[in-house]
Amino acid sequence: MSAARSIAVLGGTGPEGFGLSLRWAQAGETVIIGSRDTKRAQDAAEKIKQRVGASANISGKENIAACDSADLIVFTIPFEGHATLLKQIKPAIRPNSIVIDATVPLAASVGGRATRTLGVWQGSAAQQAAELVPKGVSVVAAFQNLGAELLNAEGPVDCDVIVCGDDPNANPVARSLATKIPGVRAIDGGKLENARILEQITALLIGLNIRHKGHSGIRISGLPPSAYETQ
Amino acid sequence: MSAARSIAVLGGTGPEGFGLSLRWAQAGETVIIGSRDTKRAQDAAEKIKQRVGASANISGKENIAACDSADLIVFTIPFEGHATLLKQIKPAIRPNSIVIDATVPLAASVGGRATRTLGVWQGSAAQQAAELVPKGVSVVAAFQNLGAELLNAEGPVDCDVIVCGDDPNANPVARSLATKIPGVRAIDGGKLENARILEQITALLIGLNIRHKGHSGIRISGLPPSAYETQ
Repeated sequence: MSAARSIAVLGGTGPEGFGLSLRWAQAGETVIIGSRDTKRAQDAAEKIKQRVGASANISGKENIAACDSADLIVFTIPFEGHATLLKQIKPAIRPNSIVIDATVPLAASVGGRATRTLGVWQGSAAQQAAELVPKGVSVVAAFQNLGAELLNAEGPVDCDVIVCGDDPNANPVARSLATKIPGVRAIDGGKLENARILEQITALLIGLNIRHKGHSGIRISGLPPSAYETQ
Repeated sequence: MSAARSIAVLGGTGPEGFGLSLRWAQAGETVIIGSRDTKRAQDAAEKIKQRVGASANISGKENIAACDSADLIVFTIPFEGHATLLKQIKPAIRPNSIVIDATVPLAASVGGRATRTLGVWQGSAAQQAAELVPKGVSVVAAFQNLGAELLNAEGPVDCDVIVCGDDPNANPVARSLATKIPGVRAIDGGKLENARILEQITALLIGLNIRHKGHSGIRISGLPPSAYETQ
């Protein structure tokens, strides 16, 4: 992955995708905000440019156009649109690109609670993504547990990002993106099948946020220093 | 719950139950180690007495006898024995006592991996317990994510304990037990249905331990100080 990689953040007009785009733009990455609506994507990119400065490498495009020009595709969309969008963008996903899935199958997607998850046949939203991407495209699960409020606030984020995926070449790319966010430690969480646990942790954190009125995150303690990647 | 409460730790001869018994004995609690085998229970109690000192209020009994003399029953047994033991001890559980369930339905219970969980019909081991206890007995889920190695080592434990349960009078009792372990912060995690997430986190932590050669735990960041209970 060259230094000139570009990251398409689908759902980048929503709070989670916007926050990730902001942090990566601040870190000097080239970010393309993807949305169904080009104008909304451009408006979000403009907002980030105002916050980061004119040198920010950020633009806004319609989802398919965003994928078409990106090496990395980050999914930060509500679960109800997950499979549909994957099918739509499939022809636009470049060979050998990486899909980083931050989607959480919250029951809120079907009118239920954000403190509960749906059962996904494949095991997790990320595994559903792995089934839907073209052959040769790797899916990595990450960023589910970083709250949008923390990403959109100033200053470091007091959270670890656990990264799960089956392609040993793709996981480090997602971990390097995680370490671009100040405060975050990236941890290799093993295979993609573990994504189901990461996704459920988000529902737990949402419940804690409601109960205790906070913006919770998780930290993993007790691993050797080599397990925690920072920039 | 009086200061003279006694805690039966079923599975207290295993590493997790032994570690919890040790910590609570060190904190001055009255602990009864429960086992199928009275002699093994007594031996474990003796080991803890040697470590804590002669003043330790600890004894060992067969499981049913242990429940018979306890106000609090802590389950730290492998999932394969969970339902069977609950049925066996059911007549011995005192009315108005509290069952604290630390059981995790690891796939290792059926010859699979300790990094995966089984699907439990009720949603979680703790919810299975809630179905099997006598009416009027409350089940609280807690302590799944405290590794045995950390409990059995010296010094504070770098982990939070999330406590979930449906009885607003029982949850604080489990949280107070958590705060007896140095380093631990107890957090109210809401309803018992959330136990399924706590249980799955254990499988994730076991995977991290294997992958990174550590003794991992979780900390929850970003909640207001009132959410974190310590002694």
